[in-house]
Amino acid sequence: MNKERIILGIDPGTTIMGYGLIREKDSKIELITLGVIQLSKLENQALKLKKIFERTLNLIDEYNPDEMAIEAPFYGKNVQSMLKLGRAQGVAMAAALYRSVPIYEYSPRKIKQSITGNGNASKEQVATMLMSLIAIAEKPKELDATDGLAAALCHCFQKNPGENTHVYSGWGQFITKNPGRITK
Amino acid sequence: MNKERIILGIDPGTTIMGYGLIREKDSKIELITLGVIQLSKLENQALKLKKIFERTLNLIDEYNPDEMAIEAPFYGKNVQSMLKLGRAQGVAMAAALYRSVPIYEYSPRKIKQSITGNGNASKEQVATMLMSLIAIAEKPKELDATDGLAAALCHCFQKNPGENTHVYSGWGQFITKNPGRITK
Repeated sequence: MNKERIILGIDPGTTIMGYGLIREKDSKIELITLGVIQLSKLENQALKLKKIFERTLNLIDEYNPDEMAIEAPFYGKNVQSMLKLGRAQGVAMAAALYRSVPIYEYSPRKIKQSITGNGNASKEQVATMLMSLIAIAEKPKELDATDGLAAALCHCFQKNPGENTHVYSGWGQFITKNPGRITK
Repeated sequence: MNKERIILGIDPGTTIMGYGLIREKDSKIELITLGVIQLSKLENQALKLKKIFERTLNLIDEYNPDEMAIEAPFYGKNVQSMLKLGRAQGVAMAAALYRSVPIYEYSPRKIKQSITGNGNASKEQVATMLMSLIAIAEKPKELDATDGLAAALCHCFQKNPGENTHVYSGWGQFITKNPGRITK
């Protein structure tokens, strides 16, 4: 088993996308980077989707993560907002699928539970706990930045992620699991 | 004004995606190709999303369309299905945005109205009308194939698509409209 892995965590939304990258090595977890992609100033949805796709692709190409964890609510206020959210998730997932990075999906509640022990924890509580779990010197100005990081850390904590989560493994795992279905 | 343009029409769904390509030259419209991308046999959503992204990218790279028209319902039965549909649309849109192909979005009702004059027309009625509008020798086995074609033709019929539809123009148009906001 590979003792080192890099995890990209993202929380794609329609106004902001948080991301965090961590490295796990011999059970030690360290922060690589975290940040936000601002979408609110872009004047139409196409520009937002394009930015999400391109920046996610850039993050993957720059840091070469082994896995991607995504914070994904499974329900929402109304069908219109879910369609928009689905599109934002879709373009981010397209970047990972394009580069054959397996995707693991976690609900907001599951992430909060994993980080703080409380599925209803506030953003502040999650951020404070993240700072004590990983050496972050200063609390980021944008709390949204910690949402991506929290997703990455949540994934890191799962012993059997395939059992607990929705796994979007791409072709690599499919081929491994279904050798007979590949034409040579 | 360019007298020739190629339009890719798509109707992304979670079990099947229809597509059609047309060429408009000197007000004459001819069919380039149409078809479906079967998704129902793929065992998880990641494989479906990956296939939608890759096949859409392939269509764009092979036929080099000037514009993409997408059939996009704005409401649906429930938030879960809309999230899935949004993801399917998102990955298809990512392919177009990645290649800087402008995206034009039309509701199913608008497409039926444009093709048949009746916003509540059946799939059969739309297919029959398409066959008389464009020289298609045989009705396609999969009626879903005509949904993508119908979207392309609907877009072709719009005199001022920017006024009637949701336009997702990508950076190209943004830069044209906002020359002052580009750092040189």
